[in-house]
Amino acid sequence: MAGIKEATVAFGVLGETSDVESRVALTPDIVTRLGRSGVSCLIESGAGAAAQYTDEDYAKAGATVATRDEVIAKADALGFVDRPDASVLAKLRRGQWVIGMLGSFTDADYVASLEKAGLVGVAMEKLPRQLSSAQSMDEMTSQNSVMGYKAAILAADAYGSFLPMMTTAAGTIRPAKALVLGAGIAGLQAIGTLRRLGAVVTAYDVRPASKGEVESLGAKFLDLGLDFSKGQGEGGYARALTPEEQAQQQAAVDEKAAGFDIVITTAKVPGRKPPVLLTASGVKGLHRGAVIVDCAASDLGGNVEGSAVGTHVTDGGVTIIGAPYLASGVATTASNLLARNVADVLAHFVRDGRLAQDLSEELDSALIVAGRAEAPAEGKPEEKK
Amino acid sequence: MAGIKEATVAFGVLGETSDVESRVALTPDIVTRLGRSGVSCLIESGAGAAAQYTDEDYAKAGATVATRDEVIAKADALGFVDRPDASVLAKLRRGQWVIGMLGSFTDADYVASLEKAGLVGVAMEKLPRQLSSAQSMDEMTSQNSVMGYKAAILAADAYGSFLPMMTTAAGTIRPAKALVLGAGIAGLQAIGTLRRLGAVVTAYDVRPASKGEVESLGAKFLDLGLDFSKGQGEGGYARALTPEEQAQQQAAVDEKAAGFDIVITTAKVPGRKPPVLLTASGVKGLHRGAVIVDCAASDLGGNVEGSAVGTHVTDGGVTIIGAPYLASGVATTASNLLARNVADVLAHFVRDGRLAQDLSEELDSALIVAGRAEAPAEGKPEEKK
Repeated sequence: MAGIKEATVAFGVLGETSDVESRVALTPDIVTRLGRSGVSCLIESGAGAAAQYTDEDYAKAGATVATRDEVIAKADALGFVDRPDASVLAKLRRGQWVIGMLGSFTDADYVASLEKAGLVGVAMEKLPRQLSSAQSMDEMTSQNSVMGYKAAILAADAYGSFLPMMTTAAGTIRPAKALVLGAGIAGLQAIGTLRRLGAVVTAYDVRPASKGEVESLGAKFLDLGLDFSKGQGEGGYARALTPEEQAQQQAAVDEKAAGFDIVITTAKVPGRKPPVLLTASGVKGLHRGAVIVDCAASDLGGNVEGSAVGTHVTDGGVTIIGAPYLASGVATTASNLLARNVADVLAHFVRDGRLAQDLSEELDSALIVAGRAEAPAEGKPEEKK
Repeated sequence: MAGIKEATVAFGVLGETSDVESRVALTPDIVTRLGRSGVSCLIESGAGAAAQYTDEDYAKAGATVATRDEVIAKADALGFVDRPDASVLAKLRRGQWVIGMLGSFTDADYVASLEKAGLVGVAMEKLPRQLSSAQSMDEMTSQNSVMGYKAAILAADAYGSFLPMMTTAAGTIRPAKALVLGAGIAGLQAIGTLRRLGAVVTAYDVRPASKGEVESLGAKFLDLGLDFSKGQGEGGYARALTPEEQAQQQAAVDEKAAGFDIVITTAKVPGRKPPVLLTASGVKGLHRGAVIVDCAASDLGGNVEGSAVGTHVTDGGVTIIGAPYLASGVATTASNLLARNVADVLAHFVRDGRLAQDLSEELDSALIVAGRAEAPAEGKPEEKK
């Protein structure tokens, strides 16, 4: 064992069961890291295979490789890329901790099922991202960053021309013109990657603050000729536009999009229907051979009207790639970042050699959505301390 | 018609029949260009579809869109990405010109069949590449350049981590280490694209001159600790190594390759078995998750021992992508460049408003492999004039 402290908390990770998931919530690097916090690791045999981590890698790092049932039986806390389904929940025992993307913003029933089972539910999606102590726990940021990178690579692969300008004896090829809609973490990473590849990049986001961020990466901010200057929502997030503003914005974006070769949309809202950023009319305006990557594509729709999960080509010759699983496509690195996020959350809760809650702490109060040891009066973080 | 001169030569292009071919030997831009040389264009309906060029695009540029048989019947010369198969040859008439990659270096029977049919065969592969007047005709260069670009994009897409270094709150990700074997046009383009994406790139080629080219792109030249300083062959091409040198080189490359995340091999030799640049033992030395793109993969083997056309993963977790059709995967641009190459060859032969040979010219003598109007004594280019 590589631990400096004696391990008194056992952390278990299972293989993800979804077909589209190649990530894993624990990587060998992180086994070593957790050892230093007094946490021993259990991993289901084969759990890291799709992310290129072997059982041997985990064992060498000091983890115990075991069967699914053994991991469940021995772990004090279990970590997930996503969240355990009902069949796993049925096997857990009261007092066990469950750390993952629990869907607590949109799925109260699921949280209730954790509560009923006597589990402690730690919801990664509830992380107070502005806290500096929380930055290394920020799974949304780490995975969206991977997503934005992969979206740009995917677009380059699907596009029938070069992204960079090329001057050859047989003529000069102009650089590709790319439009990134949504300039959050994923959008900024897409911008950076497209720029690396030599594309001329323009981006748009309803938050006025994003203009500076976009420009600092060497991209142009799309000028819609409209004023949504009151667009900055609370906490730096985009506010919802009024229906009229949305219609204006859409019409303008649709019109401007026509000049681009590549469009990447990144406004993913976990568990909710994503906003439409490009309508069918906007898609129709794109030239034959243009490529759209819609990172928000889902069963509920995507950022692009008419997009669906998978690749299809419109009658007008536009390729639309509905790609909700991009982080999983860069599984090795995505897992390593995610595992660090989960491990840092776990380590936060290791107090005096055991897992413990302190609901007077902002992080604890925000993250624990089920099995709260003693709820404060408001059941919310104390924001004025 | 957009022609400046009256069109007196008709150039026809058919849709390629191979399943793996998305390119087309004529694009709308080039229709306009040929118009200026007094060449009218005929294109088979749908021939450009896979490369995103529509019949309307061609018609707008001034081409006549027609059926396959009409194109064959009316054209004075026909251009191909590859070469016409026996079924097309059977429909051609004596005196028609055929321009394409005719395989004349390796397939004498095919050239004889052109001769027998009374056709004039213009072999793009025979282009004297060093002639400055030939540079805009150089299909090998234009298509290998596309191939090298696409190989890098494909490798980035298949690799489970980032290519660039990334510093995040959840840790720093080191840049990918890439090795490019073969530093010709394709290799240099792969180097450039991998470098754009932020990978740390090393390359190797047996030609000592390539060291400077590799380094001028910001990549390292792989130091094998061996001296092949007599490796420069005639005309700037690599000479064949002795068996002993090859064994030494392979052992050294195999050993050095172990440290890389991505390997791209580019030593494609049309019609011949490609040289092995990485043996099975070299592949075995790569880490789980490493990606190899073998541009030379073919039925005859590839640059990587055990590679085949398509993607497979070794028992050791190395992904090998045998990718002989990469230029076709960037069909829009590849076609535009190729069409320019073919068109410039065609235009070279338009003399006084008709197609004519002048075998005293180096280009004519080199390119025409069948139906030569009057063969010079040697039947070879006069090199000493």
